[in-house]
Amino acid sequence: MSLLRQDPTTKDWVIIAPQRAKRPDQFAQSSPHPSSEALPVHDPSCPFCPGNETLTPPEILRLSDSGTGEWQVRVVPNKFPALQPTGPSAYRTPHTLFYEMDGVGSHEVIIETPRHNERLALMSDQDVAMILRACQRRYRDLLAHPHVNSVVLFKNHGKRAGTSLQHPHMQVVAAPIAPVLMRRKVEVATTYYDETGRCLYSDMVEAELQAGSRIVIKKDGYVVFQPFASRLPFETWIMPHRPVPSFALVSEEDLPKVASVLRRTLAVLDTALQNPDFNLVLHSVPTTGGACAWFSWHIQILPRLTAIAGFELGSGMFINTLLPEESAKILRNAYEALP
Amino acid sequence: MSLLRQDPTTKDWVIIAPQRAKRPDQFAQSSPHPSSEALPVHDPSCPFCPGNETLTPPEILRLSDSGTGEWQVRVVPNKFPALQPTGPSAYRTPHTLFYEMDGVGSHEVIIETPRHNERLALMSDQDVAMILRACQRRYRDLLAHPHVNSVVLFKNHGKRAGTSLQHPHMQVVAAPIAPVLMRRKVEVATTYYDETGRCLYSDMVEAELQAGSRIVIKKDGYVVFQPFASRLPFETWIMPHRPVPSFALVSEEDLPKVASVLRRTLAVLDTALQNPDFNLVLHSVPTTGGACAWFSWHIQILPRLTAIAGFELGSGMFINTLLPEESAKILRNAYEALP
Repeated sequence: MSLLRQDPTTKDWVIIAPQRAKRPDQFAQSSPHPSSEALPVHDPSCPFCPGNETLTPPEILRLSDSGTGEWQVRVVPNKFPALQPTGPSAYRTPHTLFYEMDGVGSHEVIIETPRHNERLALMSDQDVAMILRACQRRYRDLLAHPHVNSVVLFKNHGKRAGTSLQHPHMQVVAAPIAPVLMRRKVEVATTYYDETGRCLYSDMVEAELQAGSRIVIKKDGYVVFQPFASRLPFETWIMPHRPVPSFALVSEEDLPKVASVLRRTLAVLDTALQNPDFNLVLHSVPTTGGACAWFSWHIQILPRLTAIAGFELGSGMFINTLLPEESAKILRNAYEALP
Repeated sequence: MSLLRQDPTTKDWVIIAPQRAKRPDQFAQSSPHPSSEALPVHDPSCPFCPGNETLTPPEILRLSDSGTGEWQVRVVPNKFPALQPTGPSAYRTPHTLFYEMDGVGSHEVIIETPRHNERLALMSDQDVAMILRACQRRYRDLLAHPHVNSVVLFKNHGKRAGTSLQHPHMQVVAAPIAPVLMRRKVEVATTYYDETGRCLYSDMVEAELQAGSRIVIKKDGYVVFQPFASRLPFETWIMPHRPVPSFALVSEEDLPKVASVLRRTLAVLDTALQNPDFNLVLHSVPTTGGACAWFSWHIQILPRLTAIAGFELGSGMFINTLLPEESAKILRNAYEALP
């Protein structure tokens, strides 16, 4: 069973999951993995490929192709979970100055496609919509669990972004605590609402649209832009034009629109940066319903082209070497050239 | 001139420094750099090697060997500075919803040694003390500047940690704003002081010493340990046993003790993990004097053995695969085996 521990100096939590570990003697530096272009459509040794369904823990969700009946998206527990739904309790045990909790929660894998060598940027809008449907189902179901206080949906694409398995997949972690960063974002937006009566994210989208220089795509009620205070070269945000607090509340009619915009955004990055390593993260108020006029869900895509170094880890601030106005220009050109 | 921009959703700042950029078309993924063992003691093409002093911008500080009179540590401005001491102003210009400042501040390089192929772990205690003296001089002088509100002293060792030049060096960035993370650490410690009348860092060291299981070295009034909520495998903190709020206030007699403990700590990591890539960061209250009973300066060493992935970037939380009690055991063994 893993542990959650609170750093007394920042009050943020760390998940310590020894079952995910390499053996301590394996931490010595290995040479970087080879890059992998020209993958096969099916790898008999891949646990996420069709025919190997028994290699994953029992399935949580399966979405199938209505024509063939074959599975198209599967959700399974992570084989080396950072958090697990069972366990003695999710209550804090004080440890003198130190707080510790059992690693209660969930850690799931969303297998995006049966085809080993696909990637989101090159899929059809329909296939991406099916994946988002699975994401939303899991997001809603996990939030409904009484112990869960936050759900982090993310994707690691490429070695520099932390991928361990090639087969296209996302991950969901549901935790009994709320990360400091997520709480801070809600606090900042709440303060803004208290002071102005307006939604920060709505005002931000309007300000970006008015400035224009950082916009990449505007389509079907969604805006894709390089944020004003971009942390990494080509950092990209996708946001609904009209704020919706939680990803759980995106309507059935809107999900295909999100899919289409996401697919195009990834295709633009794929073209401009030649299949870059990236992380994708969903930011959302952890609620499945109710009113919250001061937040909006959004997606952040963080290309991993530069190293995260001592300054960033020590201060939490980033040094970015590219103006978002410059990267937006490059990506707009790539968007216009898309087939 | 670079810019400082505030992210309206987190209130944290980003330094945007286009003069440090590769050209946009160079962001496409390059293959990883070769690892570099067996470096020469002098590389004629290295801008930090003796004989090439004119390749760096004019020197800020030089510490020389009292015997030979040759330089032993040099401090020079970073050739591609993230922040610069000159510039129109350090005041915020509101940009509708967005705050922006000129990139006023400093970005300096501390060249640790004339010898191209050295590393801190293998130097003498005296040499490390000389480097820390240069660090402290620059830390004090930069804090004395009226525009400066924070100074981040850090080191990137190895490609995965973001090094661009092999020659051993550290960096100092002095900024007109205070990063959210640093302010948060001071706030958490201040709240603790208000509630208990005690110093969080002092209580933390005592708790670690009492637990014992995460201690690596205890020597000359300094404690080296793997923190309770360790974020990365082998994360290592160095802290004075009796709290001192700022690194600027470490006494002339204590600096050699810090040097000796730091050198041994790095030697232990070097032995146990075979010269790992790492970041080193100084945490300190940004003050050159005065009372502050609730904080203590400390050094964090963050080995870069695992990738920082989407979960970490999206939530600010870390998933660590190694218990600090386990890594402490390994490092204690390495410490006992040191020559």
